[in-house]
Amino acid sequence: MGTTASTGYEARQLIRARQHTTQTAALAPGFVQANLAILPEAQAGDFLRFCTLNPKPCPLLGSSEPGDWCLPSLGRDIDIRTDVPKYRVWRNGNLEQEVPDIKGLWRDDLVAFLLGCSFSFEDELLRAGLTLHHRERECDPPVYKTSVQTTPSGPFKGPMVVSMRSFSPADAIRAIQITSRMPAVHGAPVHIGIPENIGIKDIDQPDYGSAVPVGPGELPVFWACGVTPQAVVEAAELEFCITHAPAHMLVTDLRNSDFAVL
Amino acid sequence: MGTTASTGYEARQLIRARQHTTQTAALAPGFVQANLAILPEAQAGDFLRFCTLNPKPCPLLGSSEPGDWCLPSLGRDIDIRTDVPKYRVWRNGNLEQEVPDIKGLWRDDLVAFLLGCSFSFEDELLRAGLTLHHRERECDPPVYKTSVQTTPSGPFKGPMVVSMRSFSPADAIRAIQITSRMPAVHGAPVHIGIPENIGIKDIDQPDYGSAVPVGPGELPVFWACGVTPQAVVEAAELEFCITHAPAHMLVTDLRNSDFAVL
Repeated sequence: MGTTASTGYEARQLIRARQHTTQTAALAPGFVQANLAILPEAQAGDFLRFCTLNPKPCPLLGSSEPGDWCLPSLGRDIDIRTDVPKYRVWRNGNLEQEVPDIKGLWRDDLVAFLLGCSFSFEDELLRAGLTLHHRERECDPPVYKTSVQTTPSGPFKGPMVVSMRSFSPADAIRAIQITSRMPAVHGAPVHIGIPENIGIKDIDQPDYGSAVPVGPGELPVFWACGVTPQAVVEAAELEFCITHAPAHMLVTDLRNSDFAVL
Repeated sequence: MGTTASTGYEARQLIRARQHTTQTAALAPGFVQANLAILPEAQAGDFLRFCTLNPKPCPLLGSSEPGDWCLPSLGRDIDIRTDVPKYRVWRNGNLEQEVPDIKGLWRDDLVAFLLGCSFSFEDELLRAGLTLHHRERECDPPVYKTSVQTTPSGPFKGPMVVSMRSFSPADAIRAIQITSRMPAVHGAPVHIGIPENIGIKDIDQPDYGSAVPVGPGELPVFWACGVTPQAVVEAAELEFCITHAPAHMLVTDLRNSDFAVL
């Protein structure tokens, strides 16, 4: 059931009250949404280091104190146990269940990590008048595993995952300029124009997301994607961890425009 | 006879004394070099408007008062009649002669226009560690007429001309970021990756400059080029005009780093 909210706070209240239970893409336009990974404290240091070593796929917006469900730097009265519409619970690398809250699963040693997501820079691209084909089709962008390896930290390692949006060459240049201003939400693209250079064999066969054709006279442009840390956490086969369900994000009190460094 | 100078002022003194008579590329590193067009006052208004309508190929750095050979905003004691190593004199659209100074040709109605050139942004690309293939080969970059028309003004009209440099996709993104900071010297590229989109039929057959192959796994990146106003002035078949000979530029007192807007 779709709803809208005028602020991140309002969005979280709707989610907490189960009045919004679906994807968060169109909820509270202009407010930063974040990817979530909740890990035991035993792995939190390695994961934090993984984020700092790989800032383009893992732009860290904030993390909680162990056992604390608040994130005051990201928003007023956040309760990370209830304020995301759908969670995924993982044990030993296997998806155990999807749940609407994690109050019953909370532990004193859990640390929540919130990472920037592409919704933020997509908003800026749309505001600049660029066309996003996957938005026109109302689907996710195509997402690919690449042959580019992340810099490992402890159990966290694996390929960088990228999302693709295609543009005319002039719009591709504009998209590079616009997203370069937003390093905290994936920033500039990591690649443009030659998929095979980064190990993408068939642009029409994404590993995640939806297939969206590159139009005639267009170039594919690739951004480091928040699926990277999700895939890395999954592959680490931790005894226990929790993530958001894809596209069911935390809506923060930060504004996308706050992230423009220029 | 090649020489070097530590400032733009010193470079101009060498040129004026005929101690430097060749291309200016390696002279006074870090100082802004400029393309030159000298037109009768009768056409100067239309040409100035042409530059403002087409800022990417025609980034105006300064212009003189009619009949005045000084350009105080661009450098101390500039004499535009003597401070360029080689001039081209045009009558009715035909190249009449190349001369080392234009003292004997000066008229009270002449206006000098100085336009930014790609040497400035190439310096910044090199400082950032990027490779410029044409520099390695010690030749000019390839330059192409495109199917993109400039916005006309009076007798001045014609296709935009672009220069090409090729890079790996990651370096192409970096080159877009770096040159975006320098709008006064052509700025961001106008095109990337698909030459036929802008009417370039054979990348190996440039209209001006040297053929430089695009390496494997590289993308061609195209910048608006200072040859555009030269070609437009030539095609206007003015009764009289003077330009610099290609690559024989005015060296100014401005520094390339002054042109970084960010």
